[in-house]
Amino acid sequence: MDPAPQDPITALLQTYNSLNSPHIPVLTEEPSPLEFHRYVALNRPFVVRGGAKDWEACQDWNVAKLKEVMEGRSVNVAVTPLGNADSPTSNANENDNLRNEYLPLSSALPPSIPFARIALAEKPEAINFWLGNSFSTTALHKDPYQNIYVQIAGEKHFVLFPPIAFPFVKERLLRSAVYERDGEGELVMREEDEEAEKIPVTTWDPDADPDLIEDGKGEEGRWADEKRKMCVRVTLRKGDMLYLPALWYHKVSQSCDEEGICCAVNYWHDMEFSGSFYPLCNLVRDLVLAGAGKGNDEREQKS
Amino acid sequence: MDPAPQDPITALLQTYNSLNSPHIPVLTEEPSPLEFHRYVALNRPFVVRGGAKDWEACQDWNVAKLKEVMEGRSVNVAVTPLGNADSPTSNANENDNLRNEYLPLSSALPPSIPFARIALAEKPEAINFWLGNSFSTTALHKDPYQNIYVQIAGEKHFVLFPPIAFPFVKERLLRSAVYERDGEGELVMREEDEEAEKIPVTTWDPDADPDLIEDGKGEEGRWADEKRKMCVRVTLRKGDMLYLPALWYHKVSQSCDEEGICCAVNYWHDMEFSGSFYPLCNLVRDLVLAGAGKGNDEREQKS
Repeated sequence: MDPAPQDPITALLQTYNSLNSPHIPVLTEEPSPLEFHRYVALNRPFVVRGGAKDWEACQDWNVAKLKEVMEGRSVNVAVTPLGNADSPTSNANENDNLRNEYLPLSSALPPSIPFARIALAEKPEAINFWLGNSFSTTALHKDPYQNIYVQIAGEKHFVLFPPIAFPFVKERLLRSAVYERDGEGELVMREEDEEAEKIPVTTWDPDADPDLIEDGKGEEGRWADEKRKMCVRVTLRKGDMLYLPALWYHKVSQSCDEEGICCAVNYWHDMEFSGSFYPLCNLVRDLVLAGAGKGNDEREQKS
Repeated sequence: MDPAPQDPITALLQTYNSLNSPHIPVLTEEPSPLEFHRYVALNRPFVVRGGAKDWEACQDWNVAKLKEVMEGRSVNVAVTPLGNADSPTSNANENDNLRNEYLPLSSALPPSIPFARIALAEKPEAINFWLGNSFSTTALHKDPYQNIYVQIAGEKHFVLFPPIAFPFVKERLLRSAVYERDGEGELVMREEDEEAEKIPVTTWDPDADPDLIEDGKGEEGRWADEKRKMCVRVTLRKGDMLYLPALWYHKVSQSCDEEGICCAVNYWHDMEFSGSFYPLCNLVRDLVLAGAGKGNDEREQKS
């Protein structure tokens, strides 16, 4: 452990990094429910390479098949100028869509991930279907769910930070907004009216942070070293699974397959709020919002 | 949740209490390894009433039997004027003694607690044998172990607080000391020499805290309500098991059986330091030692 940290937040980040590796386990077969629960208890991710490769969806789905199965059904599509469907400008429509608007596709997928269903003693709360192209990006955010993410076509690139990375993520209170087409069919952003409640949104883009760009020149931020040690990067390929623990920050971008699509599903289970983990994560948030570890934002204020 | 807490430590205590009950689960049969691991993940205790009632030790052990089995062997006895063998004046001799000096007794006990051994994927790190009378008291302290505590004879009374109770426990740096007999056979305390390193010791006695005495008169401490909601009291009787999670503070006193003894064993498993729980507990400690939530000690300083 590094000596004499200046403040409790820095000590927290350094202790965490001294006890946890940014290289997450890569399994070659699914864990048992008990093995899975050990990761849940630690709130630490893992990958199962090829864990879903035998799924019917991984074997059969391509553009022609998806068109055939969904023929004649209308679906919601997030259309944005830059692919940023749930960047701070609007929230993703993660609403159990596989068991609703994409129901015809669901027979090619298991109704649950058995190791997670047994370990967590409940069926998935939601199953979400994702189809996009390489422009689709999901800005850094967290969800209060235990998440099993499965890649069906193309590749997905995750940048991950644990919940205690709160000091980095620049949470801001923002009003939600939507893109609408104007009279000429151009996309324009419309904010909700000023009465609408602001919601906390993380505004940090780790891929634009000079501290995380290897050849970054200039002054380093206060926690440059802590960020670099904490940052987990994972690419999922067809048939891979990722366990993304509750409250982990994740930014997601993707690469298309040869047909130009990227497709994934994820299984959400409710997280457990009792115990001490959630209250302790709130403590970190309260401390940072109250000004602990001030100094990282100085650069931001100067610019 | 109570409104507008004054500081992050108070908010932490209130959030924890709003999500966790002081009434811990009382099971009537042993949990499965996976069920057990759900408690480990939450760092929350439970009791199994009669979970060990069929053990040979619970069936057979009495004063005559213990004398017979241990005949001719010398054992270490903690002799103190008031029964406070590991009060702040000295540490308990918890050293895997069942598999060492009390080895002849071990055949009447299982070599492990299967649900814990399987869930934690390791044999017990230590098995400790406890024999005392009603004067034996163990001052409030914590251990970095997952602890399965089993009552064999008499009763044991636990006062429990979770790790985030750190703001209450009045940790102080003290030098260790031992009781020795002087020339007349009287017990006198001898401190280690002044060069010896001081060790952190909790000095709070919840049973002497006016905030926790129901008819307590006078000014309440800053976190009186939080302490009362967080305090877990459990009595183990012959054949009962307690899961005492790692880092939980526990004060233990006892009542004898009709033969005047109190006997227990406990199984220690190493705790997991990776993940975020241990770093977050350290954060609470750092904050409190740095002065967060000052005010609770005012009363102490006045007196």
